[in-house]
Amino acid sequence: MADQITKRSENYSQWYSDLVMKADLAEQSAVRGCMVIKPYGYAIWEKMQRTLDDMFKATGHTNAYFPLFIPKSFFSKEAEHVAGFAKECAVVTHHRLMNDPEGKGVVVDPAAKLEEELIVRPTSETIIWSTYKNWITSWRDLPILCNQWANVVRWEMRTRLFLRTAEFLWQEGHTAHATSQEAIEETQRMVQVYADFARNFLALPVIVGHKSPNERFAGALDTMTIEAMMQDGKALQAGTSHFLGQNFAKSFDVMYTSKEGKQEYVWATSWGVSTRLMGALIMAHGDDNGLVLPPALAPIQVVMVPIFKTAEEHEAILDKMYELKKALEAKGHSVKIDDRDTLRPGFKFAEWELKGVPVRLAMGPRDLAAGTVEVHRRDTLEKKTMELAGLENSIEGLLDDIQANIYKKAFDFRESRVEKCDSWEEFKEKIGTGKFLLCHWDGTPETEQAIKDATKATIRCIPEDSFVCEEEGKDIFSGKPSSRRVVFGIAY
Amino acid sequence: MADQITKRSENYSQWYSDLVMKADLAEQSAVRGCMVIKPYGYAIWEKMQRTLDDMFKATGHTNAYFPLFIPKSFFSKEAEHVAGFAKECAVVTHHRLMNDPEGKGVVVDPAAKLEEELIVRPTSETIIWSTYKNWITSWRDLPILCNQWANVVRWEMRTRLFLRTAEFLWQEGHTAHATSQEAIEETQRMVQVYADFARNFLALPVIVGHKSPNERFAGALDTMTIEAMMQDGKALQAGTSHFLGQNFAKSFDVMYTSKEGKQEYVWATSWGVSTRLMGALIMAHGDDNGLVLPPALAPIQVVMVPIFKTAEEHEAILDKMYELKKALEAKGHSVKIDDRDTLRPGFKFAEWELKGVPVRLAMGPRDLAAGTVEVHRRDTLEKKTMELAGLENSIEGLLDDIQANIYKKAFDFRESRVEKCDSWEEFKEKIGTGKFLLCHWDGTPETEQAIKDATKATIRCIPEDSFVCEEEGKDIFSGKPSSRRVVFGIAY
Repeated sequence: MADQITKRSENYSQWYSDLVMKADLAEQSAVRGCMVIKPYGYAIWEKMQRTLDDMFKATGHTNAYFPLFIPKSFFSKEAEHVAGFAKECAVVTHHRLMNDPEGKGVVVDPAAKLEEELIVRPTSETIIWSTYKNWITSWRDLPILCNQWANVVRWEMRTRLFLRTAEFLWQEGHTAHATSQEAIEETQRMVQVYADFARNFLALPVIVGHKSPNERFAGALDTMTIEAMMQDGKALQAGTSHFLGQNFAKSFDVMYTSKEGKQEYVWATSWGVSTRLMGALIMAHGDDNGLVLPPALAPIQVVMVPIFKTAEEHEAILDKMYELKKALEAKGHSVKIDDRDTLRPGFKFAEWELKGVPVRLAMGPRDLAAGTVEVHRRDTLEKKTMELAGLENSIEGLLDDIQANIYKKAFDFRESRVEKCDSWEEFKEKIGTGKFLLCHWDGTPETEQAIKDATKATIRCIPEDSFVCEEEGKDIFSGKPSSRRVVFGIAY
Repeated sequence: MADQITKRSENYSQWYSDLVMKADLAEQSAVRGCMVIKPYGYAIWEKMQRTLDDMFKATGHTNAYFPLFIPKSFFSKEAEHVAGFAKECAVVTHHRLMNDPEGKGVVVDPAAKLEEELIVRPTSETIIWSTYKNWITSWRDLPILCNQWANVVRWEMRTRLFLRTAEFLWQEGHTAHATSQEAIEETQRMVQVYADFARNFLALPVIVGHKSPNERFAGALDTMTIEAMMQDGKALQAGTSHFLGQNFAKSFDVMYTSKEGKQEYVWATSWGVSTRLMGALIMAHGDDNGLVLPPALAPIQVVMVPIFKTAEEHEAILDKMYELKKALEAKGHSVKIDDRDTLRPGFKFAEWELKGVPVRLAMGPRDLAAGTVEVHRRDTLEKKTMELAGLENSIEGLLDDIQANIYKKAFDFRESRVEKCDSWEEFKEKIGTGKFLLCHWDGTPETEQAIKDATKATIRCIPEDSFVCEEEGKDIFSGKPSSRRVVFGIAY
């Protein structure tokens, strides 16, 4: 089964595509650039959603739902936003089909042209701030801490499953605050929620930092990001949190009366993560045998495969497995018994490895007699025999260990590929070899653009944690003075 | 606060609209016919989603996600389906905006016309069956039991919040089976899941039955429904489950190899409920003071309001309330303490009544001293004093009692408004007065249409439960022989 997957060393990009397909995560649909998320892939996304949603609620946010469509004129209201988002998008122009008068199926009814075209939301700042105008009059109405889980559409020309698709699923938080400081704190709070989630659930050692102005969200004063390194050394932006200042409040005329009775514009943030996280999860941890799922997000944490010759053996082993399943489920673990009787154990082993199930238990008649079970861990591919007595406790410890080990492996990998670089010649040589380079930057968009034009590398972030970067130096390209290093990398 | 709401007796329709707005459930958006679901409304919808999703999973279903867009040509593939769904819909014709050459904001880029128009899904049978074609080759691939939670768009001309909106949220199950019998069983299973949910969570005494051919889903061989009665005696279709036969398999050429090695078309079902359930919940149980929420779906089940004069009293009462909250939460109840210090208790009482919170606890210094609390139940508006000791148990019992009582009230109301009717004159007189009439029907679409033209009444369902309808008689309109009664009503 794993031999249906290209090896990472041969073609990392093809390995990714093979894995997404073969592990039943997603596939292309009949609609250009739009994907079908298959049940197994969606089950992982659901675990991400549930976990993040709990974290949002624990930080005081509530969910709401805003329209799929945005009137075209809204995009003209925020100058930078229109440049960033009103380009490649799905435009609804008509509201009716009719039977073709010439009998060839259905055609668009020309009489049903909309007065104003509607855009399928690429992001919802404009429609939400047009709504917030009705919700906010006084300081008592603030803060508003809303999130929505939704689909959005950006008409991407080159698409890749999960990483860049025309339609994708995401959550977008949109908050409104009385003061700049509160909004900045919210921006920070949510990027930290994302970092916690990435580190503790996705097992991704992300770097938290600020985007350079070139890479900011259209309409933001500051964009914070979590950046992860994939196994090819490329960077993947895994989540962003934006401080929007008063830009959208001004565009949609959203003011509040302060405690002192003054009319003030409202301060805004927005923050989001998407099904792109699925891509990050796959690319960061998968190996040549398939997916490697951190237990915290695995839809199935433990799979059990019976090994038997006779029907009696099968039954006796299954009985014991159901007993084990119950004990494991009581500990909160999700367990599957693979009792399909038309497939060989070896086939099943390969299939569950491909699907990244963290722990596999195999039991034959001799194991049953001896009161043991063979335990295989997906991350290291190690096997050992364990006692059935108290197995639920051993498995609990094992799952924790796997979660920690997957993180550590990704962390060590990244550490091995981050280095300081102070020479432009060295930069050009190394940046294409899958590294994050910590370099001095003079702070100008022009220099960043020149570096990008020469090497495809961008500033992934100006880190807030992970690395100590404050020190005097000279810009790697321009040679101008700089007071801190930033992270350069080549990004997905 | 309740005086901002029109009384039901004055104008039931206006009462509904007032309530949706004033209880912060939803509002119209800047986009014609599309609603904004506000946080409090969305919290109720989330409880519905979570409950239904658990029920779907318990019956073996998994979630997946299919594209928002459907190629126009897909709608021509199933003859009846095109007639039913390809009419009023949102049509995407272009994929780019550009700056207006004349400087007036943004305009559609005429160069970015799509080769084939895309329809925003009004329902997903076509795109899903075009996908299932890739998933199914052998009997081993069956059944497929998928559900998706999604937004859909139907370009309705006259919209009402929750009841009929251009965009709405729903779930749509789409299953594929090897045999007709399995698909019919699935259709039945899911309408029963809906009926259980309606009865036990929404507290709606629904009637389960089959739709007459006139009212069937476009492309279905049989449509099963749950029908509820609102407080004006009108019917609301609250969920449907369709047996689709092999229609979609034939349109999209989906065949499987049977155990016997034969090529067979696959059998299909689909089933769905939507944010329309929010409308049902509001209309079935609300009163002139506002919303009345069944405890099983209330985002806040118990609200506590402190009554105090001094800061010391406030603090002492709040301390006790936090203690109570903890005890209630340990029992799985959701609790809110309303400690806003700028509002009078009376104002808070009215606000939480408007929002339908099932139980309100009020505590003043004398209650605290006496070890008691004033308990108010939303459904009956009754107040009584209860002991603090063991209150978590009393509240648990009270919530159960409220849930049962809300159901009983709706059940008794419906019972009082269902009657047999055997005279056409009587039918015409009574059908407009808010009743379900159990009448004989000759089984022909023509008679049903004639009755609808004369009275606006339709066959809500051919009941499977709730009423014994099998008996010989004569059609109420045509006088032709009939072997069973059906439910006539005027529907939302």
